[in-house]
Amino acid sequence: MIASPYLLYLGAAVDPLAVKTARGVAQWRPDRCLGQLRLPGATVTLGLEDLDVAEAARRGARTLVIGEANAGGRLAPEAIPVVLAALEAGLDVACGLHQKLAEVAEIRETAARLGRRLTDVREPPTSLAVGKGVPRAGHRLLTVGTDCSVGKMYASLALERDMRAAGLRADFRATGQTGILIAGDGAPVDAVVADFISGAVEAISPARHEGGWDVIEGQGSLFHPSYAGVTLGLIHGAQPDALVLCHEPGRSHMRGVPGHPVPELAICLERNLEAARLTNPAVVAVGVALNTSAMSAAEGLELCSRISDALGLPCQDPVAHGTHLIVDRLKSCFAPPLSAASAGR
Amino acid sequence: MIASPYLLYLGAAVDPLAVKTARGVAQWRPDRCLGQLRLPGATVTLGLEDLDVAEAARRGARTLVIGEANAGGRLAPEAIPVVLAALEAGLDVACGLHQKLAEVAEIRETAARLGRRLTDVREPPTSLAVGKGVPRAGHRLLTVGTDCSVGKMYASLALERDMRAAGLRADFRATGQTGILIAGDGAPVDAVVADFISGAVEAISPARHEGGWDVIEGQGSLFHPSYAGVTLGLIHGAQPDALVLCHEPGRSHMRGVPGHPVPELAICLERNLEAARLTNPAVVAVGVALNTSAMSAAEGLELCSRISDALGLPCQDPVAHGTHLIVDRLKSCFAPPLSAASAGR
Repeated sequence: MIASPYLLYLGAAVDPLAVKTARGVAQWRPDRCLGQLRLPGATVTLGLEDLDVAEAARRGARTLVIGEANAGGRLAPEAIPVVLAALEAGLDVACGLHQKLAEVAEIRETAARLGRRLTDVREPPTSLAVGKGVPRAGHRLLTVGTDCSVGKMYASLALERDMRAAGLRADFRATGQTGILIAGDGAPVDAVVADFISGAVEAISPARHEGGWDVIEGQGSLFHPSYAGVTLGLIHGAQPDALVLCHEPGRSHMRGVPGHPVPELAICLERNLEAARLTNPAVVAVGVALNTSAMSAAEGLELCSRISDALGLPCQDPVAHGTHLIVDRLKSCFAPPLSAASAGR
Repeated sequence: MIASPYLLYLGAAVDPLAVKTARGVAQWRPDRCLGQLRLPGATVTLGLEDLDVAEAARRGARTLVIGEANAGGRLAPEAIPVVLAALEAGLDVACGLHQKLAEVAEIRETAARLGRRLTDVREPPTSLAVGKGVPRAGHRLLTVGTDCSVGKMYASLALERDMRAAGLRADFRATGQTGILIAGDGAPVDAVVADFISGAVEAISPARHEGGWDVIEGQGSLFHPSYAGVTLGLIHGAQPDALVLCHEPGRSHMRGVPGHPVPELAICLERNLEAARLTNPAVVAVGVALNTSAMSAAEGLELCSRISDALGLPCQDPVAHGTHLIVDRLKSCFAPPLSAASAGR
């Protein structure tokens, strides 16, 4: 578990895309974010208070989060003194870059000397078991996708929010780097040893004996020739009771692999249900989450309506519309059985 | 590439199962095996000449292969002096155990001092690319299975042998530890980082511009809740033109996961074809390989005949019967097109 509150490091960012990770944390877990730390020249802001390390420490910050990527996913040289100052001031440091914090000798040695924790969220847990496929208590919703990067994490977080608003107990379970920084824990399933994909997902979504829902962040797509193995293991480990299919309209081909078309929604959904039945034969689809950011509001609503009619499922853009219709469907599919008395009325 | 000829280390083995890996190498690559090294007390033999390290080196052995596993997959203490002597005598050392050779300080230091190569076949290659799914030259046959440990490696090696006997160019491509020791190279796909499963398979079976077949060793099963992700990535990376379904009759459940039934052959085959079509829409099934070792010869033939009738495919036990009927089917499915003249007769 990464300790919060966070101080979000944005460096000297001038490109909003460079702080995508930090923006996700600030958007979905504002209560975990104490402030942002920017270097001279930065033009991007997350709208948080600008704090230096000393002031953040004084106000109770527990972890400096490196939320800025430069080319190659390496730590920018100007970030290193900030990391060292944070360690000296009493903070842990968490990082979503490809380069590990401990690869920088000064950082490794300073953290060791002071007993601070360095968390690289791309590093998988070291002691994993293989998946067992044994049915477990509680309910799980999994987001699946027609492709990579179609909004599975956003859909999952919106569903957690809207399920809670509808009176359900719901907890987001992160399977990717940004999700792990948002949730404070999770496992980067694309980085685990291949034999342990489903086991890693079983580990992050254990039996819920008190009931309620885990909302598990999906990865990749069964139709992506590079990553479908990760997706299938994730599905089997999740043992989902409910699937939400995520899609971004308008792609000419699967991400990064020209020549591989994006699957039809109905076929994609059926293949995901078929895969999920191996570890939960009762799985059902409860909705479609559409990323309509590239179209007008009217076009977006129109497309949602058409997909909803075609598939017989609620279809919403989690960002533009929320997910309340999907949550309504979830509640009606998993309503507690009527008592004999009320059923007999 | 692991240099041959090999000296196969059997330790003081009294259990034939303990030397399963070495036996596979001796059976399928006798030309790579110079002899066996046994310690006092050993009762198991592979039928090779007993040699010590010095004599094996004198006769040209290049690699000592540790083909004996003890509990926990660790190197037995009595093996360490043999490994050190082999290094001193000029041999490399290859090992299929969980424990890495270099974890033993004396072995690591001796190998470094003498410039010998230590190969741990469970260690995945370090520089892998993600799979691209781009069609590549040549043909590939992949063995798939209803379950783990149903004979996919044996079937693949028998197919390579029988395809060569039938005049085809064919090369076994190893994806597991024993297969890698047999072939001398390959990649342990269950040990790669999850994102690189299909990429690892693309790497070990590159385009064959001169034609001919790669016979790729399958792993796991699409129906195994622990490992199906590995299987799917392997299928996508292999881009198989032809599938051979491997099965061991009589299992009450999937290996290691009671409660998960073994799939019907027809359903299993269809799901594997469906998965394979993502990267090769023209894939076809050419046969079924059955492990009938637990039944009488007559029962085995009877069952092969029934399965063959039911699926419309040749069905053979690769060990008891060979795979010539499957190779015949493969040749007829992939026969060069008739010329206009002969087609017009």
